[in-house]
Amino acid sequence: MENFQYYAPTKVVFGKGTENKAGQLVKEQNCRKVLIHYGSGSVKRSGLLDRIFASLDEEGISYISLGGVVPNPRLSLVYEGIDLCRREGVDFILAVGGGSVIDSAKAIGYGVENEGDVWDFYERKRQACGCLPIGVVLTIAAAGSEMSDSSVITNENGWLKRGYNSSYCRPKFAVMNPELTMTLPKYQTASGCVDIMMHTMERYFNHCDNMELTDGISEHLLRTVMKNAKILMDEPQCYKARAEVMWAGSLSHNGLMACGNDGGDWACHQLEHELGGMFDVAHGAGLAAVWGSWARYVCDALPDRFEQFAVNVMGVENGDDKNAVIQKGIEAMENFFRQIEMPTDLGGLNIEVSEDQMKELALKCSHFGKRTIGCVKKLNQEDIYRIYQKAAD
Amino acid sequence: MENFQYYAPTKVVFGKGTENKAGQLVKEQNCRKVLIHYGSGSVKRSGLLDRIFASLDEEGISYISLGGVVPNPRLSLVYEGIDLCRREGVDFILAVGGGSVIDSAKAIGYGVENEGDVWDFYERKRQACGCLPIGVVLTIAAAGSEMSDSSVITNENGWLKRGYNSSYCRPKFAVMNPELTMTLPKYQTASGCVDIMMHTMERYFNHCDNMELTDGISEHLLRTVMKNAKILMDEPQCYKARAEVMWAGSLSHNGLMACGNDGGDWACHQLEHELGGMFDVAHGAGLAAVWGSWARYVCDALPDRFEQFAVNVMGVENGDDKNAVIQKGIEAMENFFRQIEMPTDLGGLNIEVSEDQMKELALKCSHFGKRTIGCVKKLNQEDIYRIYQKAAD
Repeated sequence: MENFQYYAPTKVVFGKGTENKAGQLVKEQNCRKVLIHYGSGSVKRSGLLDRIFASLDEEGISYISLGGVVPNPRLSLVYEGIDLCRREGVDFILAVGGGSVIDSAKAIGYGVENEGDVWDFYERKRQACGCLPIGVVLTIAAAGSEMSDSSVITNENGWLKRGYNSSYCRPKFAVMNPELTMTLPKYQTASGCVDIMMHTMERYFNHCDNMELTDGISEHLLRTVMKNAKILMDEPQCYKARAEVMWAGSLSHNGLMACGNDGGDWACHQLEHELGGMFDVAHGAGLAAVWGSWARYVCDALPDRFEQFAVNVMGVENGDDKNAVIQKGIEAMENFFRQIEMPTDLGGLNIEVSEDQMKELALKCSHFGKRTIGCVKKLNQEDIYRIYQKAAD
Repeated sequence: MENFQYYAPTKVVFGKGTENKAGQLVKEQNCRKVLIHYGSGSVKRSGLLDRIFASLDEEGISYISLGGVVPNPRLSLVYEGIDLCRREGVDFILAVGGGSVIDSAKAIGYGVENEGDVWDFYERKRQACGCLPIGVVLTIAAAGSEMSDSSVITNENGWLKRGYNSSYCRPKFAVMNPELTMTLPKYQTASGCVDIMMHTMERYFNHCDNMELTDGISEHLLRTVMKNAKILMDEPQCYKARAEVMWAGSLSHNGLMACGNDGGDWACHQLEHELGGMFDVAHGAGLAAVWGSWARYVCDALPDRFEQFAVNVMGVENGDDKNAVIQKGIEAMENFFRQIEMPTDLGGLNIEVSEDQMKELALKCSHFGKRTIGCVKKLNQEDIYRIYQKAAD
């Protein structure tokens, strides 16, 4: 068991109608001026944005807004947001949306509080010394950014997708009304469920003597998300299933699943980041598309853990042939992905990846051959290329 | 499923040697002067207190100390602490100990930050408007006070034991080294395990449509504590078991187990508080002594839940006769208590409670007949008396 730090200071306000408390929660932050940051038209069309405005108006809070965040949020909009906040004296950002909007808000927050180019942090050239405080009204259950210390941005110059983690960006509060996620299309719902599961699975697969408290919580979370993801395919309006998935999204990425382990593998996330940067695929779908190939490539390095996963999470019957159990576990996960209409290979993403592009992906993912990814097996440029190739088969 | 708030901002620093980070963690709080609050001689004898002093000295932090906290911490020492803090200009309290020390520190913190008698809060006469910031070096896994919003104090004037909850008192950080708990006597270890379990069980038994994510986490936590409590009876030096129990203690009472439910029953805690106030019994042991009598008295009001508990937590085989399953579940829990040498009735506490004393307990517990306790079944003075009587049989 490893020593660990756990720090998840976000105040969660969860349930029906909670978005109407946004103004009151912002008020508690004692700020002068708020940037309301959001994405595309859906939060406008649904009337959510107007309700948020009204809630802030009611408390007499001064604000401006900046929309236009897209999935795989762009650095150019982050720069625009930084300029805007500086010009207008913004000292609090309220992100209304999903992971992309929150991540974009965090990047703007870093940019305002630190001198120099904010992209430096994402390139790991230096560390941030602070971040504007962030609040969240969550509309998509997926990224877990509403409680997490992470933010992922795409630089259009080279289409590089990079993440940066620090406690400074953990949101002060997160308003989470599962009803707001009910209108999400099936594909986005399913993709979100995969993303949530992967935040736990990335941490679950590691070489430590894991904490059994964390293991059991992780396994229960994975089973609960699978069960409710399947319910949502048929009943997208089911409040209970939306709520289970939404809360799982936060717990999966707020640090709880890393308690007592070494933080996990994260190779799949890095494999997907390159795909997301180059082809703009949905993050969860991209993760589903590479997971099986990754798992088969590395499972012999961690057989006990993959066996435990097969039995405790996927319900595979234990047997003498450990390798058979492991393979059944991986297949069962892929079958689940299929049940919720998620891809299990690159073809399923409806993209065509040429040989040359696969080499380029592997080159970027290994930071031009200078780094390995993952801990279950440390994967170099050649390993990464082979996993992409398996996923393309 | 109920709407909920979840707010657990304590930074947890968990693992071997972490007490040496106390100075650094206090330093981050930017305070002028620290009160180091502790209990009896054991933290002195073990050298822990000296290491804490050294860690603060290293950071150049100014501090004073106040020891003498006893189990069921007393209001008189709280008053003394408030005077001392005011006189010395203390603006941060570092509690070195278990739940009693932390609760005493919280009460002192309330007293310093609010005018008037601090006991008013515990009598629910008024609400606190703040609390001095608290840090914790934990030495006993039990109360969960290191992350919780609660504090329980005993007023020697009438031997009233009362709790007060507010977010103001949630500790800023908690240093948790499981090694520090290795020298605890068997009885105190077992009593702590019961206390931990009860913080989850109090929330688990309620009339809501519960969140399955919370249910499964709760059930896993209970199973994990039972397993590791039994290990500790034979191997008190087992680091892994100490760590599982210690982390379970925090998760059990930081709010996680109330997500999506209505906050729970809490009758057993109130039944025990009166016992603790009058007879000074160990809190966990007192809880174990009343739980079975409470469970049998109320289970017919919540049969599905008690059945789920029997099957998912206690491993009772499900069957057609629901009541038989429920009774087996209650018996299995009492058998577990016996396995770790905890009482299952008042006799097991080595106290003799007279008829008159039972009536007095029921009178106080019902706030002189003016209140009911619990939600599984709302228990009035007569119900409370009968449960004590059953527990005395």
